[in-house]
Amino acid sequence: MKTYGALEAGGTKMVMSILDDSGKICEREVIPTRTPDETIPDMIRFFSERSIHSLGIGCFGPLDLNPSSENFGMITRTPKLAWRNTPILRIFQDSLQIPVGLDTDVNAAALAESVLGAARGLSSCLYVTVGTGVGGGLIIHHQPVHGLVHPELGHQLILPEKDDPCPEGFCPSHRSCLEGLASGPAMEKRWHVSARDLPHDHPGWRMEVSYLAQMCHNAIMSFSPEKIILGGGVMQQTFLYPLIRKKTLELLGGYVASPCVDEGLENYIVPPGLDIHSGVMGSYLLARRACEKSD
Amino acid sequence: MKTYGALEAGGTKMVMSILDDSGKICEREVIPTRTPDETIPDMIRFFSERSIHSLGIGCFGPLDLNPSSENFGMITRTPKLAWRNTPILRIFQDSLQIPVGLDTDVNAAALAESVLGAARGLSSCLYVTVGTGVGGGLIIHHQPVHGLVHPELGHQLILPEKDDPCPEGFCPSHRSCLEGLASGPAMEKRWHVSARDLPHDHPGWRMEVSYLAQMCHNAIMSFSPEKIILGGGVMQQTFLYPLIRKKTLELLGGYVASPCVDEGLENYIVPPGLDIHSGVMGSYLLARRACEKSD
Repeated sequence: MKTYGALEAGGTKMVMSILDDSGKICEREVIPTRTPDETIPDMIRFFSERSIHSLGIGCFGPLDLNPSSENFGMITRTPKLAWRNTPILRIFQDSLQIPVGLDTDVNAAALAESVLGAARGLSSCLYVTVGTGVGGGLIIHHQPVHGLVHPELGHQLILPEKDDPCPEGFCPSHRSCLEGLASGPAMEKRWHVSARDLPHDHPGWRMEVSYLAQMCHNAIMSFSPEKIILGGGVMQQTFLYPLIRKKTLELLGGYVASPCVDEGLENYIVPPGLDIHSGVMGSYLLARRACEKSD
Repeated sequence: MKTYGALEAGGTKMVMSILDDSGKICEREVIPTRTPDETIPDMIRFFSERSIHSLGIGCFGPLDLNPSSENFGMITRTPKLAWRNTPILRIFQDSLQIPVGLDTDVNAAALAESVLGAARGLSSCLYVTVGTGVGGGLIIHHQPVHGLVHPELGHQLILPEKDDPCPEGFCPSHRSCLEGLASGPAMEKRWHVSARDLPHDHPGWRMEVSYLAQMCHNAIMSFSPEKIILGGGVMQQTFLYPLIRKKTLELLGGYVASPCVDEGLENYIVPPGLDIHSGVMGSYLLARRACEKSD
């Protein structure tokens, strides 16, 4: 039986898993993300000690995913300065001498949701995580979308609510972008209390709902995904889902003719089907695809 | 030699063309768009009198393009009420008994630009027409994007400029959407003069540039196309291109690492490579694809 390595490379921790052919997680180890010099040798050691057939990496970005670029497979302008210009794909390929698949963490999660989760059987879906940042992974025609670079959905521009005390948001690069307005830390900076502790009737939640509904509306109008999956820490507040659906319907204004809309978006704007496992299953699928491609 | 029919089905006119295998337009006829009862028989007659192998239709929307829907190939909630619920694909298939390909007018134009025009050789592009409306066609992984319905790019939400006298725009369905703020008629309603006659130093153009640059920024952040092609009547004002590039760069805020960005978007935000022929060539490509699919 073949086994595969799955690396969820995050800004605070590295989650390393070994999965078998059936997608069962056989082993899992978590180490903190320090500098590449400190962290990469530990990861190489972990994976090289297991006889895996291929490795999949869902990585924080931005990444260069253009196969014809000389920086293909490199972490580029990340704010995590120590990791800037780390050729993560090449390092693992050279050290492990097995096929390695790489994509953004959110594209990996979107892939998992489209193959095994909430968007199973559909050719397209948008996966959005709302937590310490806001990121989006996008599957269209059954494949992750890269294009010019890859989606950075959190940095789209959003209309601030009239009574938002911080209408410009907190993104250092963009005024009034989604991440700057709607991430967990943005909520905390605005209201001086963790989103977790904000009462359900606090106006901050109405604003959060508006920002996420605007994102859903813009996604439907711009690239029309067959499913929108909202995950991440902030979406643990499950009372948000019906509110976001209602506000999105209001914004759509009856313009889009679809059974999903007629049903009130109940089965369209949904939580992840794989719960908290979208990330690991996405990296696993990247590993399997890399293996198949090399066969 | 095979010949193909190309129908550009618009709200005011129907442009019917016959093209040969090499893509040369051999014949062209234009009739006004009246009601389906009046217009469709004339179109059927035109195409059935020519021995075409297949027909491609680039049609005003919205359309149902979901092959598993019972309304597949139908014009749905168009404001042109006489055309609502017209099964345009089936009518032409039944009458002509040849393969027929159907897509939105803007997806057809985007397809033509991606195969023969400004985005030739790329796997993705966004084609936007800014005229009496604002519409967007989207190619990803070499294929037009449909998804839930199909892109309705003009109805994404945009941040109005602070000094815009009509910050809510003029769309009957959406407050502050791109079409409601930036279409030709929106400019005319706002400034009481046709966009054509607005002096280049009028503040209306600064606003127009901001709205179109926001759209470009959001496209790059949301689905990262490899090329953005801006066409349509308003973009005949070619002084807009460098201004839109400059404003988009400003909005991106150094966040996206790409040679296209480093070059100032000069070869990224561009006019159509096929000039005014994107539409007819798109319908032609839909005809060819329908023919190949049936072979």
